[in-house]
Amino acid sequence: MQFPSKLIEDAVNEISKLPGIGKKTALRLVLYLLKSDKDESLLLAESLINLRTKIQYCKTCKNISDGDICSICSSNKRDRSLICVVEDIRDVLAVENTEQYKGLYHILGGIISPIEGVGPQDLHIESLIARIGEPDSEVKEVILALSPTMEGDTTAFYISKKLKTHQIKISSIARGIPIGGELEYTDEITLGRSITSRISYDAD
Amino acid sequence: MQFPSKLIEDAVNEISKLPGIGKKTALRLVLYLLKSDKDESLLLAESLINLRTKIQYCKTCKNISDGDICSICSSNKRDRSLICVVEDIRDVLAVENTEQYKGLYHILGGIISPIEGVGPQDLHIESLIARIGEPDSEVKEVILALSPTMEGDTTAFYISKKLKTHQIKISSIARGIPIGGELEYTDEITLGRSITSRISYDAD
Repeated sequence: MQFPSKLIEDAVNEISKLPGIGKKTALRLVLYLLKSDKDESLLLAESLINLRTKIQYCKTCKNISDGDICSICSSNKRDRSLICVVEDIRDVLAVENTEQYKGLYHILGGIISPIEGVGPQDLHIESLIARIGEPDSEVKEVILALSPTMEGDTTAFYISKKLKTHQIKISSIARGIPIGGELEYTDEITLGRSITSRISYDAD
Repeated sequence: MQFPSKLIEDAVNEISKLPGIGKKTALRLVLYLLKSDKDESLLLAESLINLRTKIQYCKTCKNISDGDICSICSSNKRDRSLICVVEDIRDVLAVENTEQYKGLYHILGGIISPIEGVGPQDLHIESLIARIGEPDSEVKEVILALSPTMEGDTTAFYISKKLKTHQIKISSIARGIPIGGELEYTDEITLGRSITSRISYDAD
C-alpha cells in the first residue's frame, strides 16, 4: 500500500506489529483516530507510555502491580496457606472471576517450552521455592493451575519435583468434562483423563 | 474485570475505545506490549502522538498530507483535467491500487447522512466547487466515486446539481456485476441497474 503521508505510514506500521492486527485494520484504526477527538489519541498514547515506563511487578508473587507489593499479597482477607501457581496475569483474572479462590498467587511469567527457548531459569520458579522455604512461610498447599498442554504438564512436573523436599501438599486443578459439556462430544483424551481421575462420591 | 494495576486498567480502557476492539482483545494487546521490547510500545505511542499533532490536509484536495500540498496534487505526472471525488482516504488508496486512474482527487471527508447528522456543509463540497470555478482550472470532468448506498447516491446527486452550471462533464463510476461474479447469485438491484445502464458494444 502506498500512503500519502509518512505519519500515517508510521502509525499503520507500528499498529500492525500488534498480534492479530493487519495493515488494513491498522489503517482503519488510524483513520478512526484522525476523525475522533484529539484527546482520545493523546490519552491512548499516554496510557501506553505509562504502562511501559511505570509498571512494577509484585516482589512476592511477580504479579503486575502499581507498587512493591500487589493488592492481593497485601490483603489481609486472603488465605496465606494457599498458593495458586499460574502462567500469567490473564490466568489470575480468570481465577479471580470465579470468586472461588481466596488464597495467594504466584505468576511464573510463562511456561517451559523448549521450542520457544523458554527454560525453567526464564520463569519465576526459584522465587516460588524461596517463598515456600522462608522461615515465616504459612504455605500448606501449592495448587498448579497450568494449561492442560504438553508445556503446561512439563512445567507442572518440574515444579512438583522441585517442591518434593518441602512438607507441603501439591495439587493440580481438576481436568475433566466441562460443566454443560456432553459426553459424546468430549474428545477421547479428556474423557480418558476424567475416568482415570474419577472422584469418589464419598469425597464430594 | 478487576485489574491488579491502575496502569493496566487505563491502557485496557483506552485501547478498547477503538472500533472492533473489546476489553479481552485490549488486555491481550496490553500483555503483548508488556512482554515485548520497551521500544516497541514507545514507538507505537510516539507514532500516535505524531499522527494526531503533526498531520496536515492538502489545501487543494483535502487529502491527508505531510505538507501544504499532497504528493498527488503536486505531481506533474497526473492528468489535471480529471477530478475523482471520494469519501475518504481509504477510497483514494483503493483507486490508486487499481493503477487505472491518473487524474487528481477531491476528498469529501464523509458522506451526506441525515441519520448521523452529516450535512453538505460538513463536507468539503464548497471547496470542490471553488476549485473547479478557479480561473486557471483545467478540470474537464468530475468522476463521482462514492459508495452505491442511499447516502452515496444522495451525496452524488447533491454534488451533480451544484456543478450543473459549470461547463464540465460529470460521471459516476460504473455499477454492475463484479468481475468474476455469477449472474444467478447477483442481487436483483445490482442486476437491474446493470441492465438499465447497459454498455453498447460499439462504445466499448
